[in-house]
Amino acid sequence: MKKKHIVWTVFTVIIASILFAVFKTTEANDTNGSFTIYSEIRDIEGLKTAVNLAWTLLCGFLVFNMQAGFAFLGAGFLQRKNTLNYLTMSFMDFCVGALIFWAFGFALMYGGSSLTPGLDKGNSFIGFSGFFLAGNAYHVSTSSVWLFHMMFVVATCTIVAGAVAERFKFHAHIIYSMILCGILYPVFGHWVWGGGWLANLPFGSGMKDFAGGGVVHGVGGLIALVGAWMVGPRFGKYNPDGTPNIIQGHNISYIVLGTLFLLFGWFGFNAGSTLKATDLRVSIIATNMFLSATTGAVTLLYTSYYKTGKSDIIMTCNGALAGCVAITASAAYVPHWAAVVIGISAGFLFKTSLHLMENRLRIDDPIGAISVHGANGLWSLLTVGIFADGSYSGVKGLITGSGWQLLAQFIGCITLVVWALGTGYLVFLLLKKTIGLRVPIKEEDIGLDIYEHGLSCYTD
Amino acid sequence: MKKKHIVWTVFTVIIASILFAVFKTTEANDTNGSFTIYSEIRDIEGLKTAVNLAWTLLCGFLVFNMQAGFAFLGAGFLQRKNTLNYLTMSFMDFCVGALIFWAFGFALMYGGSSLTPGLDKGNSFIGFSGFFLAGNAYHVSTSSVWLFHMMFVVATCTIVAGAVAERFKFHAHIIYSMILCGILYPVFGHWVWGGGWLANLPFGSGMKDFAGGGVVHGVGGLIALVGAWMVGPRFGKYNPDGTPNIIQGHNISYIVLGTLFLLFGWFGFNAGSTLKATDLRVSIIATNMFLSATTGAVTLLYTSYYKTGKSDIIMTCNGALAGCVAITASAAYVPHWAAVVIGISAGFLFKTSLHLMENRLRIDDPIGAISVHGANGLWSLLTVGIFADGSYSGVKGLITGSGWQLLAQFIGCITLVVWALGTGYLVFLLLKKTIGLRVPIKEEDIGLDIYEHGLSCYTD
Amino acid sequence: MKKKHIVWTVFTVIIASILFAVFKTTEANDTNGSFTIYSEIRDIEGLKTAVNLAWTLLCGFLVFNMQAGFAFLGAGFLQRKNTLNYLTMSFMDFCVGALIFWAFGFALMYGGSSLTPGLDKGNSFIGFSGFFLAGNAYHVSTSSVWLFHMMFVVATCTIVAGAVAERFKFHAHIIYSMILCGILYPVFGHWVWGGGWLANLPFGSGMKDFAGGGVVHGVGGLIALVGAWMVGPRFGKYNPDGTPNIIQGHNISYIVLGTLFLLFGWFGFNAGSTLKATDLRVSIIATNMFLSATTGAVTLLYTSYYKTGKSDIIMTCNGALAGCVAITASAAYVPHWAAVVIGISAGFLFKTSLHLMENRLRIDDPIGAISVHGANGLWSLLTVGIFADGSYSGVKGLITGSGWQLLAQFIGCITLVVWALGTGYLVFLLLKKTIGLRVPIKEEDIGLDIYEHGLSCYTD
Repeated sequence: MKKKHIVWTVFTVIIASILFAVFKTTEANDTNGSFTIYSEIRDIEGLKTAVNLAWTLLCGFLVFNMQAGFAFLGAGFLQRKNTLNYLTMSFMDFCVGALIFWAFGFALMYGGSSLTPGLDKGNSFIGFSGFFLAGNAYHVSTSSVWLFHMMFVVATCTIVAGAVAERFKFHAHIIYSMILCGILYPVFGHWVWGGGWLANLPFGSGMKDFAGGGVVHGVGGLIALVGAWMVGPRFGKYNPDGTPNIIQGHNISYIVLGTLFLLFGWFGFNAGSTLKATDLRVSIIATNMFLSATTGAVTLLYTSYYKTGKSDIIMTCNGALAGCVAITASAAYVPHWAAVVIGISAGFLFKTSLHLMENRLRIDDPIGAISVHGANGLWSLLTVGIFADGSYSGVKGLITGSGWQLLAQFIGCITLVVWALGTGYLVFLLLKKTIGLRVPIKEEDIGLDIYEHGLSCYTD
Repeated sequence: MKKKHIVWTVFTVIIASILFAVFKTTEANDTNGSFTIYSEIRDIEGLKTAVNLAWTLLCGFLVFNMQAGFAFLGAGFLQRKNTLNYLTMSFMDFCVGALIFWAFGFALMYGGSSLTPGLDKGNSFIGFSGFFLAGNAYHVSTSSVWLFHMMFVVATCTIVAGAVAERFKFHAHIIYSMILCGILYPVFGHWVWGGGWLANLPFGSGMKDFAGGGVVHGVGGLIALVGAWMVGPRFGKYNPDGTPNIIQGHNISYIVLGTLFLLFGWFGFNAGSTLKATDLRVSIIATNMFLSATTGAVTLLYTSYYKTGKSDIIMTCNGALAGCVAITASAAYVPHWAAVVIGISAGFLFKTSLHLMENRLRIDDPIGAISVHGANGLWSLLTVGIFADGSYSGVKGLITGSGWQLLAQFIGCITLVVWALGTGYLVFLLLKKTIGLRVPIKEEDIGLDIYEHGLSCYTD
Repeated sequence: MKKKHIVWTVFTVIIASILFAVFKTTEANDTNGSFTIYSEIRDIEGLKTAVNLAWTLLCGFLVFNMQAGFAFLGAGFLQRKNTLNYLTMSFMDFCVGALIFWAFGFALMYGGSSLTPGLDKGNSFIGFSGFFLAGNAYHVSTSSVWLFHMMFVVATCTIVAGAVAERFKFHAHIIYSMILCGILYPVFGHWVWGGGWLANLPFGSGMKDFAGGGVVHGVGGLIALVGAWMVGPRFGKYNPDGTPNIIQGHNISYIVLGTLFLLFGWFGFNAGSTLKATDLRVSIIATNMFLSATTGAVTLLYTSYYKTGKSDIIMTCNGALAGCVAITASAAYVPHWAAVVIGISAGFLFKTSLHLMENRLRIDDPIGAISVHGANGLWSLLTVGIFADGSYSGVKGLITGSGWQLLAQFIGCITLVVWALGTGYLVFLLLKKTIGLRVPIKEEDIGLDIYEHGLSCYTD
């Protein structure tokens, strides 16, 4: 046994070394090697580069902490018997997603954007340079942008993981995560952020999605919708007459803590999206995000209190997250008062969407991902067209008296819906016809932790 | 139902848009619009601004993570049946507090300080500009300072939440949090940080509170004292003969984890209080804070070990937090050895105060907030007057041979005690006479989670 | 009682004040007082200093968050009855370790390195200036470096705590932690990072350990090996025929969350090790670390799935951590493709080492610290000699066609093994002969929480 491992280790290293010797040769041609040894910056442009790189990295680290938030949040919403299943799904999707995004997702998304070195080839529909961060893309600036945006794509996967939890096959989740990180997200992302056709719409400033309200949350939430619909509701979720039952989460304190970690990371998510600390708008962005989050939370606490007489912490947390999502596309463009209006609207939209999913469409979404991320992600795109006050990047919404930006945003919404629902449907259909989406009913009953992962989360 | 939500949503957006159109007009006069689009900084002053803004924001984000710390810590100290109640209180107070501080708390506190644009009107007793961060206060620098200091005021509320936990009415907590964030904290804060009369005392350098040992922890701890006293001890805490019982927390691991998150955030709390990374003293500050925290922890571990033969982790955590509080006002002014002395003294002071509260005054404080934050917050102010070595901002304490600074600090302490106890008493009295402070005994017995929030934290 | 505490408090303050008055006089001679008040930086060198100081501090704060990671991870791996024991050990070792490292560990390690002011005296084997960060070492730059590196040394202690958990005497742990932080770690650290003989080996660029793969993880993991071996396996771990039993952790979700926090902190651990944001290589470093971590996780998930048919989340987490450790020494020197190869190899090496420890050497390591940190720490040193591509600091590994660097790394490995095993053995032997290493079997059976700490972690 021990011998086998050693043999495998040696084998892997040799094969991999040979394989990547090819890369190595490419990188020997890297003209940026000297640039990456930057210990003696003496001019202000160099220092500015360093400050912005540090900002991007530190915000990227914060976004990574959202994985802890998603993990807590999801684990808390689910039943004890499925805790490890969700944790493994959300852990593995960022691992696999990061590797796929390194290999080719990033190249499809940012190729042609010329945002950083090595990203020069691409057209309005897709990019094709920057594969493996090799060649000219082996560069300090390119790596920093990759790291930040990789955190975004893996968040998209994790959003989906929550909506299909407690009955989805583990390996099917890994496969669609790979497709999502490798193709679905990068292609739409290219259209918006990689110099694609949506960014260049001839209305307003072109379609704008500041920090991924559409690209991350909209795509994630809508693919979650397809997934949750196609895998079907958990057994026991709906009565024969179609009325839903509440399946309570096993540890509500995890939901609260997860929400707090998500808010913490969301500062990096939004404020870091400038990729520059020298873009001083970052403080307006962070403030807007927090105002929207807190307003969303207050809105849902009091509306549910008004109805039930109870102060519902789960609704409160969802309100905070809905507020975050709803401001994500517009955080840089809108004034503070608009952030508060957006937060209020996010709360109501969440409730409406939740009711629609739960009681009308009967789509079972254990953690509310569709309503938090999908509905509010779309709304987020529209808020740019409504509330942008023209004080940043010249983006002007309805409140300045111009409707063109809103038209661009609306086209973006339609495109997003068509793309996400369409491709999502194809992916899940393919999976359903091949390895299947759903675990056997017996295993769902026993719990996926034992079935797919071989142990229980808790001993007691 | 669904229709109702949509109607509400549309209604809210329309009303709010009309309402804030007024603001919009003001903001159209904003002369800083161009300043906020800063993508091309070429001079060193601009870059310095960017670095300091980024520092303030990143430290503010860390301070937000203290909310996760408070949530864990408090949840761990309490009984299972009241977990959600505390989590909801600590979550909602930062939401409501942030909105109040945005609307007018910040204006009362920093108006007249001229710290950033839009904060020009105010006198020695109160400020009155910067409302809603609108008009001239719609500015990148002002938003960054607001964000950082908003994290402070909401921490003050959360400190109080712990001391009154397990028997306080949820909505009464929200109301006093609004008053605390809107008036009590901002007024005292104005005196110390907003250019008020305490900052301009003619002794030493005027009263100094570097990072809020008095303003945040002193105020929070003393209002917690009033609250815990007026709401009365939990049933079962005291025997008929007046001896206290231990009501053990339901998950001690949460206490440890909460403490670790608090220490993590505290680095931002103290080092960020320079509001400038170009003030290189930040490293001395962070080091002092950590030395004081670790010394406090070691002190309480060994003193309790000496007495009971057990290595008490709860006391250790309290020691670390007491050490943090005790250095908060003085972290920038004192040398490293003094940080160690302050940590030791914080440990003993915590024990003394705990004994006083628990056994003499019989004030039931489930998480020890009064002793950690109140007693050590006051002590923190005095440490400035004792240990400041003159190497920063010219603040000189007793160890340099001058007693004037200590006099200024002492006046600050007296003022703080009078202000916090006096206004705190009025607020709680008002609440008691109107909606009441305390939940019915039956509900306290069953647990507040079911009663006020409609569900249990755990399913098992 | 109350009086006693007050007397103690006053007593401590007086004694300590007198004691440190000596220090004070020294510090009055500090020539850097003016330098530390830096509020008006106008030149680019000053601003560069500020940016790098802020980077070092912020990354240091992230490394502190790894303590939350270790706490979660360890608590999850252990039995309910020993949770508090581990949490107290891991909390106290960073408290005690920080104070010891402040008093003299730092001086032994960095004295003579001239890295910052006050660190001028030392030779190739040991340093001797910078004690108590006093005198010339009372300086903003020196404090920032101390803070960052203090986080490293305390992580080393916590690594050991995991391997000896569930049967080690609490106070024996504190004592070896003090020796580790005060002597063992600083001396080896001096050889590598403090200008000692290993750094100046005449092969390649001298021995290189970028972020502590050897200094932190190698030393921690190997001392953990000695400790776990000498304290012996937990009762019940091995059957009479020598086959091991699985003692399942009481909360696997804590393991996942701990791993996520560790990865979050690891960004600071590796990228912060430049001590400069103006060294733009930081983005390559962070990206390499994440690629290695994710590859390690994927490798172990699929290799265990291949064997057992279960998707093992514990192995996945271990794989991510093993990947982090294996890249820690080389993160700055290697290209991205090599990070992936290193991640794969780390996974296999972890499995091999785990098998060796568990089934062959029969050393009981409850959290797998020896295999994660020890085995991969040593491997990490070798990866520098193999994969360094010459694009950073001129360090060239086998892939550039030169074997000299690998020789230097190999010498470093041998030295590390001899030093850590040798001194570790002496320390544990000394402890064994005096206060003993192991709690009585009865107490191990009941659980250490009650025995050593006087309470249980959970009430239920």
